[in-house]
Amino acid sequence: MNRVDPPQRVLLGPGPSDVAPSVLRALGAPTLGHLDPKTLEIMGELATALRAIFETQNPWTLAISGTGTSGMEATLVNLIEPGDRVLVAVHGYFGARLADIAKRVGGDVTVVEQEWGRPSDPAQLRAAAAGRKFKVLAAVHAETSTGVRQELAPLAALADELGALFVADAVTSLGCLPVGVDRARVDAVYSCSQKGLSCTSGLSPVTFSPRAVDAIKRRKQPVSSFYLDVPLLERYWHGDHLYHHTACSNLFAALHEATRLVLEEGLEARFARHARLSKALVAGLEALGLELLVPASDRLPQLLAVKIPDGVDDVKVRKALLEQYSIEIGGGLGPFKGKLWRIGLMGSGATPRNVLLALSALAAVLATSGFRARGEPIAAAGAALAS
Amino acid sequence: MNRVDPPQRVLLGPGPSDVAPSVLRALGAPTLGHLDPKTLEIMGELATALRAIFETQNPWTLAISGTGTSGMEATLVNLIEPGDRVLVAVHGYFGARLADIAKRVGGDVTVVEQEWGRPSDPAQLRAAAAGRKFKVLAAVHAETSTGVRQELAPLAALADELGALFVADAVTSLGCLPVGVDRARVDAVYSCSQKGLSCTSGLSPVTFSPRAVDAIKRRKQPVSSFYLDVPLLERYWHGDHLYHHTACSNLFAALHEATRLVLEEGLEARFARHARLSKALVAGLEALGLELLVPASDRLPQLLAVKIPDGVDDVKVRKALLEQYSIEIGGGLGPFKGKLWRIGLMGSGATPRNVLLALSALAAVLATSGFRARGEPIAAAGAALAS
Repeated sequence: MNRVDPPQRVLLGPGPSDVAPSVLRALGAPTLGHLDPKTLEIMGELATALRAIFETQNPWTLAISGTGTSGMEATLVNLIEPGDRVLVAVHGYFGARLADIAKRVGGDVTVVEQEWGRPSDPAQLRAAAAGRKFKVLAAVHAETSTGVRQELAPLAALADELGALFVADAVTSLGCLPVGVDRARVDAVYSCSQKGLSCTSGLSPVTFSPRAVDAIKRRKQPVSSFYLDVPLLERYWHGDHLYHHTACSNLFAALHEATRLVLEEGLEARFARHARLSKALVAGLEALGLELLVPASDRLPQLLAVKIPDGVDDVKVRKALLEQYSIEIGGGLGPFKGKLWRIGLMGSGATPRNVLLALSALAAVLATSGFRARGEPIAAAGAALAS
Repeated sequence: MNRVDPPQRVLLGPGPSDVAPSVLRALGAPTLGHLDPKTLEIMGELATALRAIFETQNPWTLAISGTGTSGMEATLVNLIEPGDRVLVAVHGYFGARLADIAKRVGGDVTVVEQEWGRPSDPAQLRAAAAGRKFKVLAAVHAETSTGVRQELAPLAALADELGALFVADAVTSLGCLPVGVDRARVDAVYSCSQKGLSCTSGLSPVTFSPRAVDAIKRRKQPVSSFYLDVPLLERYWHGDHLYHHTACSNLFAALHEATRLVLEEGLEARFARHARLSKALVAGLEALGLELLVPASDRLPQLLAVKIPDGVDDVKVRKALLEQYSIEIGGGLGPFKGKLWRIGLMGSGATPRNVLLALSALAAVLATSGFRARGEPIAAAGAALAS
């Protein structure tokens, strides 16, 4: 067994994104106990930073000790009791995962399917509800499998009609796009420490509105998960700090630093950076002759789903990017396997340099696959970046 | 919001333990994607190392992306179906947690309580089973709340009589004591990345025997947790690596390095080191005039439960140790709150230097609390270390 020596990648897939040097330094700083006063201080400041980034006043805001999927599960397992009606908007892989977990935890789940690559339609969801009341309406804000953006406010209005709590998946949106939890009136939101926040994976920021907290407190049955029991986690984070699990101080310190960088940049500036760089990357991809899955109106800036041209081998291209240039981009999920690439420009990885790197490496590798570029991708991106 | 700067502690509590510099460097090394060939290579080697440390041939050996408690929950939620009979041996806080989670996931749980501070008695468990068959018999190998060691082999024999799968909690034993999964015939074992393995927390090594795997495969109902669904995790780890969650490559690299250090030292040498240093610490504590909760025959070497002397303020002493000497020891859990200290000498933290440090700091702080040492703790420990 040899000592590992992980190479330096440029992470331009759907996540993880590039991690800033100061975040890696915080990760590798000395370990503290999970009840150390310094750890509790870091957690308190981290929760405050997460509230600012979620744009919420919710007291119940903390980070689950697991990846974004653990946050998805924590949200559903705490809000849903067996037999509760749940309406799920599915237009991609992660909407389908939401529905799967809602069923596993005992929900009576109604799934409304939309073509993958387009956002869900509130009218179609309303029709499927057919006048019934629901406990939860759940949807994905930024669908990682397709790069589709779902507007939250219309779904919050629909949730009111249904008497439902509104749950939104912000795994790929937080730190890249405004989530605006209080403004959009979302009752429970989960995200991840990687992607838009550009920490490593391993933590899942979550926030619960007072209405969601009430619903959790009024449960008739205990939460079937102890590890993801939010009232116990809330007590550890913000109450008397009663021991619940041995949280990782190193991950807390790293996410503390990552959120500090987000707030130092400022949310508006960060969102504008993602939008600007995304436009440049799109200009370059289109000049290269590649087509995007999602129309501009519904497209996430931070994650572009690119159709793989006919005759081009998905795996061969991604392998060449990784092996020759140490650049990671993502492949397609589910029905899009072999049909899509997913190129992320997220958090610390959203830089002008990475726009050029993504385009030039893709152009170089595609040229060896017999694909002829239509125009001048680098010039197109350069012009967009200069404007 | 200021940049965090975690201080250097000496971690002599019940965990986390001190993390070796090379493990922290691996943790802070560049982040890789969760499907990067290098990540998959690290995972493969890590699983091999975990098999060696668990002393098992079980193919289903991997690390859950969460703390030890997530491993406890993963084990139970995969093995237990609603209504299954579960017999739990409880002689401390973590046995009680096992019973709690077994109930939450729908088990028909029979709890056999033993006085905290003594191991459970197989005869008492057999009597409570009253001739019935059980799906699972669960017990804690090294009870973190009391420092009690439970012999596994007699419980494996009892599990055979009950027709049960035998589940053992090795959170505080792995890397400090022989767990010997195949030798002791344990069907499912979970542990943690911290404590005896001396990585940070955040991962939970688990292993399942072929019998346990069969039971999981024969389930009638889906596992209520997606995040902890072991067949999906197994497929991500050892199958076609189908995406399940965005695992943290940094934690994998750190645990890879931590397990490399364990195997480089050798299991026998590591167990002997823990035993030898523990004896020296015990000699010093007794010379100081402190009393241990657990008789030597049932005592864990790596975690000593020390009775707090009458008139000595628990919190004041631990606060002084932390603030004046940057040393962490643990307090008591549940009924032992304010009555016990838990002093850990685990993994990288189990050093002759830390034996002296624990004793001298405790002696110095106790002296200011009006506690009179009985003898010469440093001389007693030094003599034991020299022998």
